Amino acid sequence: MSAVLDAIEAKKFGGRLPEEVIQEVVSGYTAGEVPDYQMASLLMAIFIRGLSYEETLALTRAMADSGERYSFPECVDKHSTGGVGDKISLTALPLVAACGAPVAKLSGRGLGMTGGTLDKLESIPGFSVNLSEERFRRQVEEVGLAIIEAGDLAPADKEIYALRDATGTVDSLPLIASSIVSKKAATGAGYLLYDVKRGSGAFMKTTEHARELAELLVRLSESMSIKASALITDMHNPLGSAVGNALEVCESVRFLRGDQVPEDLAYEARYVAGRLLELKGIEDPEAAVEDALSSGAAYEKFREFVRAQGGVAETLDNLPVSGEVREVAAPRGGYVSRIEALSIGRAALALGAGREKKGDELDPSAGVEILIKVGDGIEEGEPVARLYGGRNVQRAEALVREALELSYEPVESAPVILDNL
Amino acid sequence: MSAVLDAIEAKKFGGRLPEEVIQEVVSGYTAGEVPDYQMASLLMAIFIRGLSYEETLALTRAMADSGERYSFPECVDKHSTGGVGDKISLTALPLVAACGAPVAKLSGRGLGMTGGTLDKLESIPGFSVNLSEERFRRQVEEVGLAIIEAGDLAPADKEIYALRDATGTVDSLPLIASSIVSKKAATGAGYLLYDVKRGSGAFMKTTEHARELAELLVRLSESMSIKASALITDMHNPLGSAVGNALEVCESVRFLRGDQVPEDLAYEARYVAGRLLELKGIEDPEAAVEDALSSGAAYEKFREFVRAQGGVAETLDNLPVSGEVREVAAPRGGYVSRIEALSIGRAALALGAGREKKGDELDPSAGVEILIKVGDGIEEGEPVARLYGGRNVQRAEALVREALELSYEPVESAPVILDNL
Repeated sequence: MSAVLDAIEAKKFGGRLPEEVIQEVVSGYTAGEVPDYQMASLLMAIFIRGLSYEETLALTRAMADSGERYSFPECVDKHSTGGVGDKISLTALPLVAACGAPVAKLSGRGLGMTGGTLDKLESIPGFSVNLSEERFRRQVEEVGLAIIEAGDLAPADKEIYALRDATGTVDSLPLIASSIVSKKAATGAGYLLYDVKRGSGAFMKTTEHARELAELLVRLSESMSIKASALITDMHNPLGSAVGNALEVCESVRFLRGDQVPEDLAYEARYVAGRLLELKGIEDPEAAVEDALSSGAAYEKFREFVRAQGGVAETLDNLPVSGEVREVAAPRGGYVSRIEALSIGRAALALGAGREKKGDELDPSAGVEILIKVGDGIEEGEPVARLYGGRNVQRAEALVREALELSYEPVESAPVILDNL
Repeated sequence: MSAVLDAIEAKKFGGRLPEEVIQEVVSGYTAGEVPDYQMASLLMAIFIRGLSYEETLALTRAMADSGERYSFPECVDKHSTGGVGDKISLTALPLVAACGAPVAKLSGRGLGMTGGTLDKLESIPGFSVNLSEERFRRQVEEVGLAIIEAGDLAPADKEIYALRDATGTVDSLPLIASSIVSKKAATGAGYLLYDVKRGSGAFMKTTEHARELAELLVRLSESMSIKASALITDMHNPLGSAVGNALEVCESVRFLRGDQVPEDLAYEARYVAGRLLELKGIEDPEAAVEDALSSGAAYEKFREFVRAQGGVAETLDNLPVSGEVREVAAPRGGYVSRIEALSIGRAALALGAGREKKGDELDPSAGVEILIKVGDGIEEGEPVARLYGGRNVQRAEALVREALELSYEPVESAPVILDNL
C-alpha cells in the first residue's frame, strides 16, 4: 500500500503518522505522484483528528525541505498573521536594522483584506522586490535590511495550501502553524518574532485561539533551531490611520521621521522592535529604539534600504496617492467605541487597494484614511474617513459607515498588545 | 459557496446535511461538476463524523435517483453481502419462483474472493445475462424468474464507490448501507431479503457489526417502500462444498434435484426461500418449499429459467469443469474445527475462479471442491479437497492446507443462521 493510503488508514481512526510516512506523503504530493483526492482525504482526517506535536513538527520539516532553503542565522525576521493596516514590517524592521540587527526578509503578496508588505513597498516609484540571491545577500550585509519576493520556497506548503483552500481544511491549528513555520524555516532567519493578530479583521477571532497558535509557532520554531517568541495583538480596529499601499508607506515614513502618528501604531512598532532586539540579545533595547528614532537613524536606514532596491527615496515625503478623494461624514455624534477592522478592510479592498483573488491588479494609490480613533468624541457630519481611489466608492463609503460604532458614554481605548510569550 | 463546500463545512464539525444539499452534491458529482478532491474531503468527514439516519436515507435516495429506475413491485429479491461458495441465489430463487413468488433480479459481477451470480450462470453454455428490458419483463411474467446484468443503475453509487475505494473511506456503515440499498431500490423489487454474512470470508467480521448493517439495510428499504427483512449468516467456513463458477452451479442443481448436498447449504437455501415467501405473504412457506423440492417443481423452474435465457438445460447434469484436477491430502489427522473461508476463497481466486481486479478474465471451470465438513474426523493423508484448474496450483494447495484447522477433540458444527430480523 502507498504511504498516503497508510496515512489515511491510521489517521481516520485517530492514529499517529510516523515521520517517514509524513515525509513520503509530502514529497509524493509535491512530485505529483499522490493524487489530489487522496491528499484531500488525508487532510480532512487530519483536520478532524488533529496532529500530535511530533507529527506537526515532521510535517513542518517535510514542507520546509521540499524546495530551496536559505540560511541567515544572524538575521532577525518577523511574521504577522495579517491584519488591516498592519504596517509593523515597514516601521519596526528599519528601526531594528538601524539598531544593528540585520533583517533578511522573504515576503509574500497580499490576498483578500490583508495587505502584503511587497505590495506596499512597490507603491514607491522604482522599488524592486526581485533581486538576485547574490544582490540580496550583499544588501543584507551592507545595508542590514533587504526584503524580496519569496519565490519558490516550501513549494509543498504552497500546493497543500491551495488544496486546503478548496477542500474546507484551512482552519486547522496544526496545518496553519506548520504552513507558517515551514516557510519561515526555509527563509532561514535565526531570530523570529510572531505577531499573532486576533479580532474581526484577523484570522483568529479569540485571544484563546490566538494564544494556542502563538505557542505552537514558537515551539515549532525552537524545534527547528530558530530563536522565537510571539505577541498577541489586537485587530478589532485597524492599526494606525492608513489602510492601502501608498497610504501605509506614507504613515510609516511619518513614524520613522518622528512625526505624529496614531498612538497604537507608534506603540506597537516600538514594542515589536524592542522585542526583536531582545531576541537578538541586544542590550537595553528600549533605549536603542528611542535613540534610532530621535537621531533620525531609523528614517535614514529606511531611505538607504529603499535606494538599495531601486526606489526613489526623494519621493517618500510625497508618494502618489489617488487624486479621487471623498470624505465620509459621521452619521451621528457620540464617542467612537469601535472602528470595525473587517469592514474597513473590505472598504479598502473595494477601492482597489487589495486583491479579491490571486492575480488581480491592485491600485497602489487607493485606500482609506481614518480620521478618528477609538475614544474620540465626534459630532454629526464631522469627517471620519477619507476614501482614495475611483473604484466602488459608494460601496466603500457604506462599509466605512458600517464600521463605525458609536456610544453615548465616553469610551477608553483598548490595549494593542494583548499577550506576550 | 457551492453545495459541496457547504456540506464539508457542516460535516467536518459533525453537523447535519440538509436533504437538498445531499441531492445537489450527488447530482453534481455524477455530472462531473464536483471535483474528486472535494468529494474525497466530504467522504472522509462523513467517514469520521458519521451520518444520521435521515442523512443516510437522503443519500440513498439521491443515488437511487441518479440513473434509470426499474419497478417490479410484485417481485421478490435477495441481496447477499458476499461470501465464499455463496450459492443461495442459485438455489433459493428458483425455489421461491416455483412457489409462485416472481423474481426479477439485476445482478453484478464478482470481484475478489466473492463470486458473482452472473459469472456462475455464464458457466452454463449458451446462457446470456444481457436481455433487452422488454424480454426481461416478459420472462419475469412468463417464467417468474429472470436474472440480468445491472447495467447503469445508480451511476452515482458506482462513481462514489470507486472514489471511496481509492481514499480509505470504504468501511463506513452509512456509506455501505446507502450504496447497497440505492442499487436495490433502483432495481425495484417490492420484497427484499438481506443476507448479511459475517466471518473471515465476509466484509463484516463480527456478528455485532453485521447486525448493525442488517438493521440499517432493513430500515432504509422500508423507508424506500420496500418490504424488507434480514438474516445474519455465518461465513467463517465456505457454504456447501463447491467454490468456483461451474462447480457451484452443479452443486445448486444437485440441491434442486433433491440429491445429497452439505447440510449447511441445504438448510440455508430452504431457510432463505421460506423467509422470502413469508415476506411476500405466502401461507405456510415451509410446506410450500418442501413441496416444490420433492415434486421436482423447483428443479424444473430452474431448467425453464436457464432455457429462457438461452442456456442449454440438458448440460446442467454435466457442466464442463476443468480436467486438471489435484487432490489435497490432510497433513495430519484430527477433527475438522474450521475450514477458513478467506483462505479457500483465495485458493479459488488463485486457480482462476475469480477476478483479482476489474476486467480480469476468469476460468468458469476452475475452483475448489471441499470434501470434508466442520465436525468430520479425518486421517492423515485422506483427501480434503479437489482443486480444479491449471493456474497457480501450488499456491492454491498451500492456501487450502492453511485453511484447514484440526482439533484433537471432537467438534460440533456451528449454526449457519446466526440471527434473523
